[in-house]
Amino acid sequence: MQEESVNQRVTLGARPVGYPREEDFSIVESPIPEVRDGQALVRILWLSLDPYERGRMNEAQSYAASVPIGGTMVGGAVGKVVSSRRSDLPVGEYVEGPMGWQSYAVSEGHNLRRLDPDVAPLSTALGVLGMPGLTAYFGLFEVGRPEPGDTVVISAASGAVGAIVGQLAKMAGCRVVGIAGTSQKIDYIVDELGYDHGISYKDEDFQSKLAGACPDGVDVYFDNVGGDVTDAVFDLLADRARVALCGQISQYNLATPDMGPRNLRSLVGKQVRVEGFLVSRFANRAEVARRRLTQWVSSGKLKYREDIVEGLENAPKALIGMMHGQNFGKLLIKVSDD
Amino acid sequence: MQEESVNQRVTLGARPVGYPREEDFSIVESPIPEVRDGQALVRILWLSLDPYERGRMNEAQSYAASVPIGGTMVGGAVGKVVSSRRSDLPVGEYVEGPMGWQSYAVSEGHNLRRLDPDVAPLSTALGVLGMPGLTAYFGLFEVGRPEPGDTVVISAASGAVGAIVGQLAKMAGCRVVGIAGTSQKIDYIVDELGYDHGISYKDEDFQSKLAGACPDGVDVYFDNVGGDVTDAVFDLLADRARVALCGQISQYNLATPDMGPRNLRSLVGKQVRVEGFLVSRFANRAEVARRRLTQWVSSGKLKYREDIVEGLENAPKALIGMMHGQNFGKLLIKVSDD
Repeated sequence: MQEESVNQRVTLGARPVGYPREEDFSIVESPIPEVRDGQALVRILWLSLDPYERGRMNEAQSYAASVPIGGTMVGGAVGKVVSSRRSDLPVGEYVEGPMGWQSYAVSEGHNLRRLDPDVAPLSTALGVLGMPGLTAYFGLFEVGRPEPGDTVVISAASGAVGAIVGQLAKMAGCRVVGIAGTSQKIDYIVDELGYDHGISYKDEDFQSKLAGACPDGVDVYFDNVGGDVTDAVFDLLADRARVALCGQISQYNLATPDMGPRNLRSLVGKQVRVEGFLVSRFANRAEVARRRLTQWVSSGKLKYREDIVEGLENAPKALIGMMHGQNFGKLLIKVSDD
Repeated sequence: MQEESVNQRVTLGARPVGYPREEDFSIVESPIPEVRDGQALVRILWLSLDPYERGRMNEAQSYAASVPIGGTMVGGAVGKVVSSRRSDLPVGEYVEGPMGWQSYAVSEGHNLRRLDPDVAPLSTALGVLGMPGLTAYFGLFEVGRPEPGDTVVISAASGAVGAIVGQLAKMAGCRVVGIAGTSQKIDYIVDELGYDHGISYKDEDFQSKLAGACPDGVDVYFDNVGGDVTDAVFDLLADRARVALCGQISQYNLATPDMGPRNLRSLVGKQVRVEGFLVSRFANRAEVARRRLTQWVSSGKLKYREDIVEGLENAPKALIGMMHGQNFGKLLIKVSDD
C-alpha cells in the first residue's frame, strides 16, 4: 500500500486491443491535494471493479465518456472524509461514489452518498447494496418481470449481479437455473444460494444439460455474458419470454467483432422481448430497492460473497482476471484500512 | 381457372430446402364436397399470399402447425357462401377466414368473419382491413410505441404491412424512412404514401444514405426483413429505441442458418427494446383497430395497393416471387369472379 503522504492513482496508459494487459495501466504518485473552499478530501477504503470499466478504456464512447489516455481509471469507491471545507461532508463521514482508482479523492459533494457503517459493512455499498444490487433488482423485476413458476436463467450466475438476481428470483417464486464456469461456483449457487440448477458453460454437454434443466423453456433470461452462452439460451426461450440484457462480457475483449447465428427470427414466433437496460434508468426508485435489499441482507435472506484483493496497485491484474472469470463474488480492492 | 364442377387445391408436394420451387407444390382436383348438417360451402374469390405461409412449409413447427405433405396450403381467403346448412351462413354471404389454397372450402363456421361488400372492396379484408392492416396497427402502436418527432424506419416499406405502417406513423407525427428494393417502390412510398425518405437496400451507399436520412438515430424500427438490412438499422438505433420484429423474410429461404454480427451488446448501452409479436396477441382489440382503418381507407387518408395475380394455379409462382421481392403491394390471387 502507498505511503500515507502520497496519492496513488491508476491511470490508463494505452487503449487495449482485446484483453487489457497490465502494461496498459500506469501507477502514478502525486502529493495528496489540499482542499479548497467547498471541497472535501476522501481517503478511499474500497474500490469496486466492475465489467463496465472495461468499456471506459475504449476510445469509442458508449453510454458514458471514455477514460482519456493518462486519466485516472473510473470506478465506484467507498471512503472516509479526512479533511473538509464542506459542512455536509464532515471529517469522519463515510461516503460512496464514483471516486476512481486512487487512494485519495477530492470531492465537491457531487454524486456522493453518505453511508451509515452500522447498517451494513461499508463494502456492501459497492455490491449487494450498491450498483450491482440495484442492477439485479431492477433488471430482474422491471425488465425481466418474472412470475411465480417461471424458469429464470442467469449467466455469470455467481457474479456480483447474477448472485443477487438468482436469490431475488427465488423470492419471487421462480425456478432458477444458473450458468457459471467452475464447479466451486456451481456448488455455491446451488448449495449456498438455493438455485435449482447450476450448469457450467465449459461442460461439453452444456446445451443438453441446459435444455434438461429447462423442460418448459426459459421464461426470463438475465444475461451478463452474451456470445455462445446466450445463443444456447435463446434456443430455449419460451413463448413471451423476456430477456434482460445487463452485460455482454464475452464481447468486451474481442479485437474484432464476433459473428454468431442470426437469432431474431425465433423471437418473432415466440413473441420474445429483449431489452437492454442501465441501472440509471431506475434512479428515482433506487432508495426503495436499497431499503428492501438492506432488510434482506440484515435478516440473512439475501447472501453475498466478496472477492477481496489487497492494494490499489493490484487493481489492473484483478480487472484482467475478472475478464477471464477468475473472480468469485463481488470483486473489491481494499485500498486502505479504515 | 378451374371448371365449375371441380374443387382445385394446391397442396404441398415436398418440403423446400431454401427457396421453394414450383415443383414443391401440386395442383389437385377433386369433386366439390357436399355440405352436411352444420356446414356451408364457400366459393373462394380471393386468396391472400403472405410471407408466413413459407414457414408453414417447413417440418419444424413454429408458432403454428406445419402443412403436412399432401395437405392443402394454408392461407387467408375471401369467399361467398354458395350452399349452406347453417343459418348463420346463408347463401350469398361474403366471408373471410383461413380457408386455404383451394377454389371451394367447407366451413363449420369457425374462424369466419362476415363481410359487408358495401363498406370496402372485398379484397381489402385480406390486406389493409385484414391481417396485414392489423399487424401494422398493433405492431407499430403497441410494440413500436412511436411518439411525435420520432424517426420510424420500416423495412419492406412498400409491402402489405410496411405500406400501412408508414402511413400510420405519419399520422402519429413521426418522420418516416422506408427501405425497399426498387426505384418504383421508393417513388411510391415517397410520392404516394408521403414517407419522408425512401432508400433502396440494393444501393451500394445504402448504409450511408440510411444514416443520412436518420441524423438523430432511429427511434422505432419496424422490421419485416432481418439480415443485412437489419444490421444496418441496428447500427443507428437511438437511446431507448424500440424494434418491432414483425418478420424476417431474408431468413425464410436459407438452406442453412445465416451468421451475422453479434449486436446484442449495443442494445445494452442504448437500452433498446426488441420485441417479436404476432397479431393474434391483440385479437381482443382487433375490431377497434379495424374500425379506424376502415374510416381512414374510406376517407382516403390511408392508401393501399394490391398486386393481383389471376388463377389459383399461379399461386405457387406468385409466392416464390414474393420471396424475391417481386410483388408490389398486397399480393392476392384472384381465384374466381364473384
